[in-house]
Amino acid sequence: MPVHPIEYRYGSNELREIFDIRNKILLMAKVEATLAEVQAEFNIIPKEAADAIRKAASEISYEDVKEEEKITKHETMALARALAKKAGPYGEYVHLGVTSNDIIDTSMALQIKMAGGIIIRRSVELLESIVSRGEEVADIVALGRTHGVVADPIPLSFKFAYWSYLVRKSLERFVRSLDESIMGKISGAVGTMAAMSELTDIDPQLIQQEVLDKLNLKPADISTQIVPRDALANLITTIATFSSALDTIANEIRNLHRTEIGELEEFFEEESQVGSSTMPHKRNPIRSEKVCGLARIVRSLSIAALENMVLEHERDLTNSSAERCFVPEAFLLLEEQIMTLTSVIRGLRVRTDRIKDNLTKYADLSLSERFMIALVKKGVGRQTAHEIIRRISIEAYRSGKKILDVLREDSQVSKYLTREEIEILSDPSTYIGKGREIAKKEFERAKSFLAEVLTYE
Amino acid sequence: MPVHPIEYRYGSNELREIFDIRNKILLMAKVEATLAEVQAEFNIIPKEAADAIRKAASEISYEDVKEEEKITKHETMALARALAKKAGPYGEYVHLGVTSNDIIDTSMALQIKMAGGIIIRRSVELLESIVSRGEEVADIVALGRTHGVVADPIPLSFKFAYWSYLVRKSLERFVRSLDESIMGKISGAVGTMAAMSELTDIDPQLIQQEVLDKLNLKPADISTQIVPRDALANLITTIATFSSALDTIANEIRNLHRTEIGELEEFFEEESQVGSSTMPHKRNPIRSEKVCGLARIVRSLSIAALENMVLEHERDLTNSSAERCFVPEAFLLLEEQIMTLTSVIRGLRVRTDRIKDNLTKYADLSLSERFMIALVKKGVGRQTAHEIIRRISIEAYRSGKKILDVLREDSQVSKYLTREEIEILSDPSTYIGKGREIAKKEFERAKSFLAEVLTYE
Amino acid sequence: MPVHPIEYRYGSNELREIFDIRNKILLMAKVEATLAEVQAEFNIIPKEAADAIRKAASEISYEDVKEEEKITKHETMALARALAKKAGPYGEYVHLGVTSNDIIDTSMALQIKMAGGIIIRRSVELLESIVSRGEEVADIVALGRTHGVVADPIPLSFKFAYWSYLVRKSLERFVRSLDESIMGKISGAVGTMAAMSELTDIDPQLIQQEVLDKLNLKPADISTQIVPRDALANLITTIATFSSALDTIANEIRNLHRTEIGELEEFFEEESQVGSSTMPHKRNPIRSEKVCGLARIVRSLSIAALENMVLEHERDLTNSSAERCFVPEAFLLLEEQIMTLTSVIRGLRVRTDRIKDNLTKYADLSLSERFMIALVKKGVGRQTAHEIIRRISIEAYRSGKKILDVLREDSQVSKYLTREEIEILSDPSTYIGKGREIAKKEFERAKSFLAEVLTYE
Amino acid sequence: MPVHPIEYRYGSNELREIFDIRNKILLMAKVEATLAEVQAEFNIIPKEAADAIRKAASEISYEDVKEEEKITKHETMALARALAKKAGPYGEYVHLGVTSNDIIDTSMALQIKMAGGIIIRRSVELLESIVSRGEEVADIVALGRTHGVVADPIPLSFKFAYWSYLVRKSLERFVRSLDESIMGKISGAVGTMAAMSELTDIDPQLIQQEVLDKLNLKPADISTQIVPRDALANLITTIATFSSALDTIANEIRNLHRTEIGELEEFFEEESQVGSSTMPHKRNPIRSEKVCGLARIVRSLSIAALENMVLEHERDLTNSSAERCFVPEAFLLLEEQIMTLTSVIRGLRVRTDRIKDNLTKYADLSLSERFMIALVKKGVGRQTAHEIIRRISIEAYRSGKKILDVLREDSQVSKYLTREEIEILSDPSTYIGKGREIAKKEFERAKSFLAEVLTYE
Repeated sequence: MPVHPIEYRYGSNELREIFDIRNKILLMAKVEATLAEVQAEFNIIPKEAADAIRKAASEISYEDVKEEEKITKHETMALARALAKKAGPYGEYVHLGVTSNDIIDTSMALQIKMAGGIIIRRSVELLESIVSRGEEVADIVALGRTHGVVADPIPLSFKFAYWSYLVRKSLERFVRSLDESIMGKISGAVGTMAAMSELTDIDPQLIQQEVLDKLNLKPADISTQIVPRDALANLITTIATFSSALDTIANEIRNLHRTEIGELEEFFEEESQVGSSTMPHKRNPIRSEKVCGLARIVRSLSIAALENMVLEHERDLTNSSAERCFVPEAFLLLEEQIMTLTSVIRGLRVRTDRIKDNLTKYADLSLSERFMIALVKKGVGRQTAHEIIRRISIEAYRSGKKILDVLREDSQVSKYLTREEIEILSDPSTYIGKGREIAKKEFERAKSFLAEVLTYE
Repeated sequence: MPVHPIEYRYGSNELREIFDIRNKILLMAKVEATLAEVQAEFNIIPKEAADAIRKAASEISYEDVKEEEKITKHETMALARALAKKAGPYGEYVHLGVTSNDIIDTSMALQIKMAGGIIIRRSVELLESIVSRGEEVADIVALGRTHGVVADPIPLSFKFAYWSYLVRKSLERFVRSLDESIMGKISGAVGTMAAMSELTDIDPQLIQQEVLDKLNLKPADISTQIVPRDALANLITTIATFSSALDTIANEIRNLHRTEIGELEEFFEEESQVGSSTMPHKRNPIRSEKVCGLARIVRSLSIAALENMVLEHERDLTNSSAERCFVPEAFLLLEEQIMTLTSVIRGLRVRTDRIKDNLTKYADLSLSERFMIALVKKGVGRQTAHEIIRRISIEAYRSGKKILDVLREDSQVSKYLTREEIEILSDPSTYIGKGREIAKKEFERAKSFLAEVLTYE
Repeated sequence: MPVHPIEYRYGSNELREIFDIRNKILLMAKVEATLAEVQAEFNIIPKEAADAIRKAASEISYEDVKEEEKITKHETMALARALAKKAGPYGEYVHLGVTSNDIIDTSMALQIKMAGGIIIRRSVELLESIVSRGEEVADIVALGRTHGVVADPIPLSFKFAYWSYLVRKSLERFVRSLDESIMGKISGAVGTMAAMSELTDIDPQLIQQEVLDKLNLKPADISTQIVPRDALANLITTIATFSSALDTIANEIRNLHRTEIGELEEFFEEESQVGSSTMPHKRNPIRSEKVCGLARIVRSLSIAALENMVLEHERDLTNSSAERCFVPEAFLLLEEQIMTLTSVIRGLRVRTDRIKDNLTKYADLSLSERFMIALVKKGVGRQTAHEIIRRISIEAYRSGKKILDVLREDSQVSKYLTREEIEILSDPSTYIGKGREIAKKEFERAKSFLAEVLTYE
Repeated sequence: MPVHPIEYRYGSNELREIFDIRNKILLMAKVEATLAEVQAEFNIIPKEAADAIRKAASEISYEDVKEEEKITKHETMALARALAKKAGPYGEYVHLGVTSNDIIDTSMALQIKMAGGIIIRRSVELLESIVSRGEEVADIVALGRTHGVVADPIPLSFKFAYWSYLVRKSLERFVRSLDESIMGKISGAVGTMAAMSELTDIDPQLIQQEVLDKLNLKPADISTQIVPRDALANLITTIATFSSALDTIANEIRNLHRTEIGELEEFFEEESQVGSSTMPHKRNPIRSEKVCGLARIVRSLSIAALENMVLEHERDLTNSSAERCFVPEAFLLLEEQIMTLTSVIRGLRVRTDRIKDNLTKYADLSLSERFMIALVKKGVGRQTAHEIIRRISIEAYRSGKKILDVLREDSQVSKYLTREEIEILSDPSTYIGKGREIAKKEFERAKSFLAEVLTYE
């Protein structure tokens, strides 16, 4: 039975299969076969050899390779031997002129490309759901809060627009970092292509290009025994930033789901879902909590990925064990966060009743700025107006009264504002500035971006 | 097929089974059964119910629980229902007066206790191997190096003694942090034991004590819905420090294994092991490299564990998903490091030929301090003597000569030191101060500690 | 003007002066003078030389040393030269038989010892304030919350007891890790004491012991050119755990300070303090927010300290630049957190009115477990009782009624519980189990610990 | 005296002044003045008020503001009051319609823009020095190494080209992340521009645009009370990746500087520099070690910056204290690394003698692949050829002979290769494949990029 939750609990099967060790072997075999194919095209090896290797690659099993690894203690050499055995006499043409990491790094690039495609797909769904739910709630005005304390009101769509921004920018950066990471190499033991150069008069840079073209990858600008690990570190820190953006959104939903606020509720399967094994009334925002918890792991991986860049000379092996852990973890945990948040957003219950109640209850707190501005418009100096409202707030606090009540009775205020004016100003739903327009603009930007990213192959 | 290397590549099966999700279920069932047993002893539930629940706990399967979880979306509630079903009419006595985390945290403490025992056992083997190999090499004098540049010589045992110190202290801290972490709780929904208090007149603190006594655990000094996560954070950072100590040792072996130094060699299975798929001569220190690579992951987990302490109110759920990842990873990767380093130390080839060659070749660099001190003993002021030898070193560097050769010809030096004196001082093997004694003392400390830790149950 | 906030904003002047570069120079000079004193006692150097060096050490200025460093590019050598100049003819006895890090590491241990003493003092004040405020509120019953959702009630003292636990354990660990870190060394270039061994027949281990005794430090069990950095890494991760404990407490205060909860309020200087430059009513929990913000930095330092352990051979210099940053930052930021939280706790306004209102308002949510248990006591099976209350909760949720109202009318419930029984059970203030006793016990433990730690010299 | 090394030791004065708290105040005043100017242009406030505020802003001092902060406990409010006082009757127009973070975030964007410009300038110098030194050494062939063990040879320029790639890509990413971070905001208390909307009929989005245009900044796509912190987190992780790239290069120089390798030497001021206070011969790569040490701090800051993204509602204050630390640290420490590495690269001594010696000494190890390929070209199967050379390597290892010597005598090899052929193949300087071409291409890419980045305003 599995131990790590990315095996069975976090991430989709579709993504898991990409990082499955069996798939890794198959992709490595595919790179070997593609190399042979290109070498045959350049007449470096017989066409029949390339065919035999392609066939062997399609038949190779994980077990075949593990059997060889027991002997050689070297994963790629084990693969080469297993392929060679299957390819019969043509087996001698396997792995010609290359080093292990030509195969390992190129196949990792294939994995990352496929995995990245899935992340993009999932992110598109998340962004769509945020925009769609956000557009629905443009007419709802809710309390804003800063420092956990009531502040100016906002249209609820403004909050969704902020989330849209966070996901859109995260995805933009992800696409860019992914694109930069999809680099393979066929450059040999130290990156100079020396072995291949001796084997043939063809420029080995052409061979590298051709192999990677067939695999839909780009060559690294320069490689040593391996592709430099800066792009991977950049990809993982980008994933960590993405993950922290999702943490921000899920954390917000948790806070708005609080009993005492109750403005947004994570959905709950009432018929059967159990919130607590001992408190039967419980409806906990467990999905959002999971999104926040996983961010802790994904953030921490950025440290491993950064340390991982520092390799000695033309490479050392310290990256290998670290990457076996952090690459699949980063992708599968990010995917789990995205998918979970998508379902939370889609199922989110917008409690208009609670939103309205809260807005009414704390109206005066949400309007202190407005009254200060109103005084300014009547000719009071800004600093003076601030001090007047501050004084009124303190009086209200001390006496347990509402600010609005104190304000209505205040002799200094009444010099400037009539009862009617105060009444008109006391409606928080009209104090939202350009919130709706700003939100709308963001949704437009998100939709344009979605249209664009969907064409990403 | 698995994705994460802790499933199949890193860590022992013995340790893996402890963190296996099936074992987790069995341990949770064991806690439920122990609770029932204690409740029966205190006449809160019938003796027959406790027996039925114990029997159900021994028969429960992972699949039973997963079936229920599909409905409830709640792991512990699913377990309770599965147990209840198996226990027939007595099923109603399952999970009485407790909350999920009474079961989850207590069973996690059981896992950590068992896993910690394995780590201690592995560490003992590592420390023994270091001490044993260290004692073997007390007579060998080798170059010391600081900043990667040759410095005073050392007895080779001194280096092993430093490693012994690192592992001994790491293990001391681990035992202490582990001990502090083995806390369970039976304190209910928010830690006040309210439900149990209503159920019975027995002091629920007694019930908690009794359940944990039977499980060989301690109660948390105070718990909310969960055991506070500070002790776990402390355990994980202790593991990260341990891991970095192993990184230090493995990194040293890699450096001494370098072609140009070659004083220590990681063992190599000559008959079959392949060092490189393209450079057939290669003998790479791959095991030590793995130890260093894994430290990157383990170090990073300390961040996740520290963030994990911050929970709201009487708990939120963000710790749950994070811990599912970092707890098994920390243990399994540390174990892999320890086991790998043990095999490296045991198989380490001490190349006395290379050590001697290097010592001879760079003798003059390793003795510059000695000559400065020799001048001091002859009455030259310390700062003056330092400047004399510094001057000679520069002359040697510029002319490409050996320092010793320049020194022998130096008119200022010859005022104080005779040719014979210089010759005697020129033997680096006699310039090791108290290195051997210090190393010996450390080995004695390590052996005393080992004798003591072996009695740790 | 300064750049980094630890220069002027975070931490006390008292602590700042310890890490001040001028103090560092003075402490290094003190170590040199103590070394000379011991060497004079052992007749290695003239008594007059030791006196002259002691005098020079008392007169040395930061500027003297910086002048020399411009030439030598070596901090300790600059100090030795500056001391030597001041000591006149006896200057030649400065720094005899030692290496720079004998001075640097030993003086850093002095700094850490002094700084640690301040942290202990500050922590004692924090713990005292928590216990004292906690004991005051033992009679107040408040809502408990899990997942941000109302749960069983707790006595308010229980929350303070949890904080007491967090600070007490953090301080316990800090004292232990500090104690382990206060190690000096006088063991020379590679730790073998070779130079000193040649200078004199006295066992240099005695000299090391004597110097460190005079400085109230312990010798490292083994040192290379430097004291091993594992104890420092352990100290910094302990500080990071401490910092995260403070983050937990401050975060809780922020949540309880929320407008909609309002049970605890960070104090506010009404006469003059401004909460917002634009919203005059604002009373924000800015001190608690600062405590949480600083935890981000302190946590991150643990990574630097862990990486810092890995040094090559008998040392490399990579630790030096890193430690110059993370050591003072860790101490000063932790101190700022402790001092800030102490003032927050002392000034905390306990809003009994809001606590009571909330308890009444959400009583039914906080009692769902109690009613389940009440049914069990009347003979209903536990799982059945859970399902009954869950059903009632859903009905209440759907109809917008209070659970208690639905429960009173429920025909299934009324089979077991009378109106009177339901009324009695409906008082949340009697549903706090052993919360008060557990809190009291913790406060006793804290007071015992405080009595003990205050004797720590 | 200062405590933190960024005050006096790391980073340039030029950069330090940007983050100086006095400069921060001046920039905040500048934003206030620019706001007033735009408001005057739009006839929201009198032209004279804008002039008075501009004048006040030019005269304000740090001390003025600190005086006010003692009263208000609010930094921006203190600035507004200090400005207002200086502006006399027009002081009432200061800070009109905005919130503190309109000023704080916008001035931080100004700081980051200026600081980023300096980093770009420094990076350009570093990249130029790498390219220039790399082009000089294109004719030198040196040993390649993987796993610390000798591998195929490389042209020395290839190593510099790898460094060029690392710095070029780091700078590319830095420019992009910087560009994305230079966002200001004039959007009020919660981002809706409500106050400004009430003050005037002008669209406040125009006012924001106009203010930021004058300051050469861009508006955030959407802002709450603050600019979202994702772009800052992305900038800091980009800096951490850059820092790790420099760590890689400096670490390589340290390894090649080792006594036993000695191929590259960090420069040393022979006349005066002291390598060790006790070992007078020492020439340590201390500058490169510093670069590596600082990377530990910079990497760790990425964690703080990632956690820093997660803010509640329309903002909380936890970002404030954290950013005060990590923003200046990240810039100043990165700058120190870049400047230090530039001086190291410029002063690097290429020891062609040692390079040649090593190449000769370990020629046979560096050519094992070549002989395998040679056999393949003669018709031996690849896997068979690998096994032949592996066998020969083992024989050589066991007998202590050179591989080339064993190979020359090997009966299996002599079936395929003549003595003459073996002799020709035995010259490592001809086995560098396309290394020179690849390096040249990279230098061209770097030069194009430099030409482009230099136009970056």
